Amino acid sequence: MIYFDNSATTKPYKEVLQTYVTVSEQFFGNPSSLHKLGGQSEQLLEQARQQIANLIGVHSSEIIFTSGGTEGNNLAIKGTAMQHRNRGRHMITTEIEHPSIYEAYKQLEQLGFEVTYLTPDENGFISAQQVKNAMRDDTILVSLIHVNNETGAIQPIKEIGDFLAKFPKTYFHVDHVQGIGKVPLNIKESHIDLCSFSGHKFHSVKGTGFLYVKKGVTLSSILTGGSQEQEIRSGTENLAGIVAMAKALRMTLEKQSQMKSHLIELREQIMNNLHQIDKAIINSPSYNFAPHIMNVSFVGLKPEVIVHALADEGVFISTKSACSSKSSDVSRVLQVMGKSDQVAGSAVRMSLSYENTMDEVEKFNNIINEVIAKLYKVTR
Amino acid sequence: MIYFDNSATTKPYKEVLQTYVTVSEQFFGNPSSLHKLGGQSEQLLEQARQQIANLIGVHSSEIIFTSGGTEGNNLAIKGTAMQHRNRGRHMITTEIEHPSIYEAYKQLEQLGFEVTYLTPDENGFISAQQVKNAMRDDTILVSLIHVNNETGAIQPIKEIGDFLAKFPKTYFHVDHVQGIGKVPLNIKESHIDLCSFSGHKFHSVKGTGFLYVKKGVTLSSILTGGSQEQEIRSGTENLAGIVAMAKALRMTLEKQSQMKSHLIELREQIMNNLHQIDKAIINSPSYNFAPHIMNVSFVGLKPEVIVHALADEGVFISTKSACSSKSSDVSRVLQVMGKSDQVAGSAVRMSLSYENTMDEVEKFNNIINEVIAKLYKVTR
Repeated sequence: MIYFDNSATTKPYKEVLQTYVTVSEQFFGNPSSLHKLGGQSEQLLEQARQQIANLIGVHSSEIIFTSGGTEGNNLAIKGTAMQHRNRGRHMITTEIEHPSIYEAYKQLEQLGFEVTYLTPDENGFISAQQVKNAMRDDTILVSLIHVNNETGAIQPIKEIGDFLAKFPKTYFHVDHVQGIGKVPLNIKESHIDLCSFSGHKFHSVKGTGFLYVKKGVTLSSILTGGSQEQEIRSGTENLAGIVAMAKALRMTLEKQSQMKSHLIELREQIMNNLHQIDKAIINSPSYNFAPHIMNVSFVGLKPEVIVHALADEGVFISTKSACSSKSSDVSRVLQVMGKSDQVAGSAVRMSLSYENTMDEVEKFNNIINEVIAKLYKVTR
Repeated sequence: MIYFDNSATTKPYKEVLQTYVTVSEQFFGNPSSLHKLGGQSEQLLEQARQQIANLIGVHSSEIIFTSGGTEGNNLAIKGTAMQHRNRGRHMITTEIEHPSIYEAYKQLEQLGFEVTYLTPDENGFISAQQVKNAMRDDTILVSLIHVNNETGAIQPIKEIGDFLAKFPKTYFHVDHVQGIGKVPLNIKESHIDLCSFSGHKFHSVKGTGFLYVKKGVTLSSILTGGSQEQEIRSGTENLAGIVAMAKALRMTLEKQSQMKSHLIELREQIMNNLHQIDKAIINSPSYNFAPHIMNVSFVGLKPEVIVHALADEGVFISTKSACSSKSSDVSRVLQVMGKSDQVAGSAVRMSLSYENTMDEVEKFNNIINEVIAKLYKVTR
């Protein structure tokens, strides 16, 4: 099996699953319970929080555990909207966000909020100038994906954050779900107020995630109740998942520092091969790109046909993002980049993790060459 | 260790953890992915959904997976409020709800909704007549806990459901988190529209839950995005957790039918002993009570002191609900039942599961007698 769909989800590390089981068995007490089983669980919870905070360079009180990236993004957006609706009802985001951002904003529009959706250039980039132009006195939030989940384009977070730092009443929310462990991002230096993370994208278990909430930033909760997580996110903490996630993050960041060029080398081999395929159109940018995401269109072929044909050979890739793969063939992200419907409707995505090898890449190159040639033959 | 805090959380069954690990390793594909790894995950997801639906006697399309009871309750309440706000802004609940219901309603009041909070009688019961009296033309939702998490009082769900069935525009939401596997509830016959469940209360892993959403009932999503779970709850499905939860539910319901009188017998022995303790005031009702929850006040003693003293002897119980145990000594639920501050401020809760034994109960009775006697001696 060659699994090149790591932006959809990753396989949990063996050690991470072991941690999960150990914590589930030995620390099953509710961290909110007063007795010592609860106390031990709470201690472990705070250790995991501290570890994650250290790994991403923030304070532990700035980490709010969630059930994943979708919850983190919804909490950041709706939590800001509800908390600060009397200060302003304008928000800025882009046309190239993950559905958990894009659809959250669409929902807020129905509640009377006004949203500006920035359009990327033909390479999939948003500029700081666009954000500047869209800013209003009543803008309460700017949301932006760091590494685009379909194309791998890296947005100029630092530049936008530097600009937004002058507007303390406008929060800056970054979706770092695809970037963490792959593309460095200094949260503090980039003046980010809210930053979302999803565990299962870095070999943790599913149902885990966290939101960075900068000290002083106030949010209305969307899951209200027992006042856990500083009253921002109620519900009994998924302690085993949280400790497992802390371990997965540590392991991933270690691999990132030890295997700096690994993904770049794999990507280069894949891209060099894709470029040679007749009718292949590369949709990922040729600069400011993430090392693990590649998007290519094979005009005239249906992306799901390519995905299935490759799966029959034991190769797993995807059509655009998993979270929207079942709706329509055409990629919204590629469309707004100005790609034709033909291109936007024939795109597939390969996404890597540190677990992938050069051997897999070589096999992949041979397989995709054969599969694409065969499919073009059939459709001719 | 004698663990009598099963209403705070339960220890996951060994078999449930094994299932969790197997699914995490062998079915790690994203159910939304088009390729066959995704397809296999999706198939397993739908099997788990069908299994859970069968176990509780509903249709599989009526099961929405969540991250737990807090999310289920918030989704039911806020999802109804946002979806049906143009039809009406009045809602009915009670003073004895779990914080995830009570606080969700408090939040909606700030958004312009009007909420009637019904007060229980001195035994902790709400009557159908109270609901009838509170009903208005613009009432869109009635929320009620089935088994109260502090006292174990069983509310007349069927009677209230029968009444509300005449009002198709008013949804009936039941919090079944404490009742499932302990106190039977026929969802269909009780005319329930929304019913919340939490996995970790029945020996599943934490971070799992589901909401029953009756066919035809429409909700606005609170976690918006990739359109999973019929667009009611987006986010990559926690497949391993979901399959583990289905197994835990099956095992728990099997134990319920095989060990019908077990909890009743354990409870009887505990209650018989508590009644003999000087100054003990039983707060759980003497009729319509759940077999696994007992609430007692030891007037003059601080509940956290009792909890800690028992923990030193290896016995784990709680002060009121875990989700509010850190805020204040005084129980809101007992207060609204008309208990004095002395009584409401000195209550502890014992909560059982099928894993508890008569041997544990005998030991517990001896230990609590000694501990309480010692504490009264010290405070005298």
